[in-house]
Amino acid sequence: MGQGRFISFEGGEGAGKTTQIRRLVAALEERGIETIATREPGGTQGAEEIRALLVRGSADRWSPLTEALLHNAARSDHLDRVIRPALDRAAWVVTDRFADSTRAYQGHALGLGDEAIGTLEGLTVSFTRPDITFILDLPVEEGLARARAREADAQAGEDRYEGLDVTFHEKLRQGFLAIARAEPERCMVVDARDPADAVSEIIWQEVARRFPEVTG
Amino acid sequence: MGQGRFISFEGGEGAGKTTQIRRLVAALEERGIETIATREPGGTQGAEEIRALLVRGSADRWSPLTEALLHNAARSDHLDRVIRPALDRAAWVVTDRFADSTRAYQGHALGLGDEAIGTLEGLTVSFTRPDITFILDLPVEEGLARARAREADAQAGEDRYEGLDVTFHEKLRQGFLAIARAEPERCMVVDARDPADAVSEIIWQEVARRFPEVTG
Ligand SMILES: Nc1ncnc2c1ncn2[C@@H]1O[C@H](COP(=O)(O)OP(=O)(O)O)[C@@H](O)[C@H]1O
Ligand SMILES: Nc1ncnc2c1ncn2[C@@H]1O[C@H](COP(=O)(O)OP(=O)(O)O)[C@@H](O)[C@H]1O
Ligand SMILES: [Mg+2]
Ligand SMILES: [Mg+2]
Repeated sequence: MGQGRFISFEGGEGAGKTTQIRRLVAALEERGIETIATREPGGTQGAEEIRALLVRGSADRWSPLTEALLHNAARSDHLDRVIRPALDRAAWVVTDRFADSTRAYQGHALGLGDEAIGTLEGLTVSFTRPDITFILDLPVEEGLARARAREADAQAGEDRYEGLDVTFHEKLRQGFLAIARAEPERCMVVDARDPADAVSEIIWQEVARRFPEVTG
Repeated sequence: MGQGRFISFEGGEGAGKTTQIRRLVAALEERGIETIATREPGGTQGAEEIRALLVRGSADRWSPLTEALLHNAARSDHLDRVIRPALDRAAWVVTDRFADSTRAYQGHALGLGDEAIGTLEGLTVSFTRPDITFILDLPVEEGLARARAREADAQAGEDRYEGLDVTFHEKLRQGFLAIARAEPERCMVVDARDPADAVSEIIWQEVARRFPEVTG
């Protein structure tokens, strides 16, 4: 079967990443494809410990550079212990956030800039780039409203970015859209205002178009 | 008075860094110079939390790259919140380990290589390089014996590298000596087998030679 496929989901809070990943993974497993669903920051024991430093506390707890270094440390562990071994045994990997989140959050919205982010990405990600990235795009207010409605979740306390204003989240959205414009082959922007069924249908069509083996 | 001075101490376990820093800081303060004694990884609340991930657990807990990213994250916070603000107000900073430890441990002894380490150092340290670095040099067996004799210390549990063999510590020593050869202006190698009084006298003479204002 060769090498596994690597798919990332990106977008702001409440865009529907978790919802869509659950559906995509179920569809792949139904077809007998071994699929690892994972997330960033996190996905390994060590990376989850680094995550705890990143998602809690005040927004100015770390500088953008410190934060980018911590995200890359977590990503490096995740790549070493989960993503690369899975792809090597031909499993598929579907991740909730990956390097584009560092570009959009630390690089764009927090102002660190593309150059430092690109340097770190070269070291950490190197050639392990996603085959497809779905960017779930939603007006900022709508995403924040959905995230607030979901508040009762297990994510209690993981609110470091929620205190940031609409300007921050608007920059974040523009950061993701700029990545999609720069890498149209890899990235597909999906209108996340559509009902969840419509969104998952669009995602599945794209996966089937890019990897016809899933329907064969 | 202008800009403060930045001095780092480097060397393997048990070389005498903590001992010598205590003496140098006392001598500077006696002369009315505001001096910050600090350490790496650590020196800020956030960096000490990162330190806890680095100094405990099994030696293979992190890959060399992940480890280098974590050290740089801690260093970035330390620079932002302690080192640069102190130097800006003309205080002196004396640190127990700095970027040369990342070069020697992760770059040299653990094999990550100079290029990745240099890239990270460029991002994190940038222009905030030590004015003087004292490399306390000791035969490996002697350093390990001293560290073991000190075992009753408050450093309980911080033993991630102690399990590594003599070959590792020998590479580490050679890594530090290579740095000193590459940057002889900045680095002074001190024979740490000498009695502590003799070592501190050599260090004080060098500080006075480089910064005559301390004796003036
Ligand atoms: N297409 C959609 N339309 C309306 N609500 C949605 C849609 N997709 C997800 N939701 C709801 O919005 C909230 C956020 O979705 P979630 O998948 O947790 O987003 P994310 O993981 O991107 O933060 C959840 O309550 C979810 O049920
Ligand atoms: N010059 C010296 N000669 C002999 N023993 C020393 C000397 N300097 C320090 N020691 C002792 O060696 C041990 C390690 O010294 P320490 O300053 O803690 O080293 P480091 O901080 O480099 O690990 C301590 O018990 C200390 O008292
Ligand atoms: Mg989610
Ligand atoms: Mg010490």
